[in-house]
Amino acid sequence: MFDIAIVGLGLMGGSLALALKESSTLRVLGIENDAPTRILAQEQEITSEVTEDLTRVKEAGLIILATPVRTIVELVPRVGELAGDGALILDVGSTKRAVVQAMEQLPTRLRAVGGHPLCGKETHGIESAEAQLFRDKIFVVTPTSRTTSADIERVRAILTPTGARVIAMDAEHHDYWLGLTSHLPYAVAAALVLTTPEQNEATWSRLLASGFRDTSRLAASNDVMMRDILLTNHDNVAEWLKKYANRISELADAVEHRDMAALSEQLIRAAEKRRRLYPPEL
Amino acid sequence: MFDIAIVGLGLMGGSLALALKESSTLRVLGIENDAPTRILAQEQEITSEVTEDLTRVKEAGLIILATPVRTIVELVPRVGELAGDGALILDVGSTKRAVVQAMEQLPTRLRAVGGHPLCGKETHGIESAEAQLFRDKIFVVTPTSRTTSADIERVRAILTPTGARVIAMDAEHHDYWLGLTSHLPYAVAAALVLTTPEQNEATWSRLLASGFRDTSRLAASNDVMMRDILLTNHDNVAEWLKKYANRISELADAVEHRDMAALSEQLIRAAEKRRRLYPPEL
Repeated sequence: MFDIAIVGLGLMGGSLALALKESSTLRVLGIENDAPTRILAQEQEITSEVTEDLTRVKEAGLIILATPVRTIVELVPRVGELAGDGALILDVGSTKRAVVQAMEQLPTRLRAVGGHPLCGKETHGIESAEAQLFRDKIFVVTPTSRTTSADIERVRAILTPTGARVIAMDAEHHDYWLGLTSHLPYAVAAALVLTTPEQNEATWSRLLASGFRDTSRLAASNDVMMRDILLTNHDNVAEWLKKYANRISELADAVEHRDMAALSEQLIRAAEKRRRLYPPEL
Repeated sequence: MFDIAIVGLGLMGGSLALALKESSTLRVLGIENDAPTRILAQEQEITSEVTEDLTRVKEAGLIILATPVRTIVELVPRVGELAGDGALILDVGSTKRAVVQAMEQLPTRLRAVGGHPLCGKETHGIESAEAQLFRDKIFVVTPTSRTTSADIERVRAILTPTGARVIAMDAEHHDYWLGLTSHLPYAVAAALVLTTPEQNEATWSRLLASGFRDTSRLAASNDVMMRDILLTNHDNVAEWLKKYANRISELADAVEHRDMAALSEQLIRAAEKRRRLYPPEL
C-alpha cells in the first residue's frame, strides 16, 4: 500500500513528488502514461514506484490528480470507480469549477477536495520539476460536498512541509479571480507575441530587450495546459479580456490623439498601483 | 575643459557616468537641475564635477543629453546655442525621430547623432544607476545630416568599453520597431494593471503569482519618461496597439465560443514563437 498516488508526473506532479520525498517519509506511487517520463521518474527515484497502471490508485489513501485540467475532469469519475473506500482525491488543476463539479458526482464512499498551487512556470514536464516549487507559494484548496474539515487538515498536514501556504476558497471565487491574476496575463502575453510580424524578424528581434522578454514570458507556457485552463474558465476569461480590451482602447485613444492629460492620468495610476502591489525592493 | 558633459543624471545619465568612470579616464561634467540628485552625484563622485549650469556644456567636446525625450527635444536648440564649435551632441532618448528632427536644425558648426541604449529598467533616478547597465546591451545610433562616419566611430570608441554593442539604424525604422519591441509591451503591462478592480484587492492580490508580476513589471516605469516616449512615437504606438487589439479580440472570440481548434492554433503559434525568440536555457 501507498500513502499517496500521484497521477501525472509533469512539472506539478513531479515537483510534488520531489517535495514530498524531501519533506516526508510518505510512500508515493507515481502513475504516468508517458514512457519517457516514467523512465526519468524511475531513474531519479522521485517516487517509491512508478507505473502506467491507473487501476493501482486503489493502493493509495490519498490520490492526487496532476494532469491538464480537462484530463483531470475526465479522470475524476474513472478514479472514483477504482479508488478504495474512504480514499481522498485531490487535484492540482489551475481552474476549479469543472473539477469540483466532477467531484460532486463521486460515490459518497469517497472524499474529495480541489486544489491549486500558485507556482506555475513557463516550462513544463518532469525535466522542469523541482522540490522547492511550492516553497512560500499559496496552495488554494476548494471544498466540495465530499470535503470535511478533517480532509482539509489532512491536505494541509501533507503540504505544509513542502513550504506551501494552504488557504481555502470556493471554486466560483477561485476561478473568477484567477481569471484576472493568472489567465488574463497569459492571454495578454500570447497576444503580444502574436502581434510580432512574420517579416523582418532579423531586424526587430535584435531590438528586443528585457521589457518584451518579461511581458511575453507566459506565452511560452504549455499550450495544452493553457488551452484547458481557458476552456474551463471561458466565461470569466472572456469577461476579463473584455475589460482589458477597454483599457487598451482608452490607452490607444489617448496616444493617438496625443491627449497628454488623459495619458498621464492612466500611466500614473498604473505605475502607482503596480508599485503598491509590488513594493520596490530596498 | 571636459571630454564629456552629461545633461541629466538619472538612471541613464547616471549609469553612463558610472560606466565611463569605470572604463575610461575621460573627464566628465555632470549637469543636473535637481538638487538632491546633484548632492548624490557629488557624494558618489560619479562625474569629475557636478553643476546645475547648462551653459557649461560649452566646456565639453561631447555633450550627451539624458533627460526624458520631450525635454531632449527642447534641449537640442538651447545646447546648440551654447556648445563650442565642432562639439558633438548625442542623446540617449528612447524615441529618435523627434530628436533627429531637432538635431537637423542645429548650426552647421556642430555635429550631432541620436542614440538609444536598450537597457531600461522599471526603476528610475540616480539611485538606480549602475555601471554595468550597458554591458552586452544594444546601443542604437541614429545618424543625422550633422553626422559623419567619424562621429559614429567616436561614439563607438567611447561606448564600447562600457560593454554596449553599438549599431546604426535610421530614426524612422528605429521608432517603428521600438514601438513593437518596447512601447507596446509597456502599454500592454499598464493596461493589465489598470484592469485590476479597486474592490476586493485583499482577495485578489493574495492570488497574484509570478506570471502577473512579470507581465505587469513595465507598468512601474517612470510615467514622465513613458509619456514622452508614447507622445513622440504616437503614430507607431497607435498602429501597434490596433494590431495588438485585433490579436486580443481573436483570442477572446476563441475563448468565448470555446473554439478549441482556433484557440489551440493561436496558443501553439504563440508558444513556438516565444520559445524561438528566447530559447529555453539548458
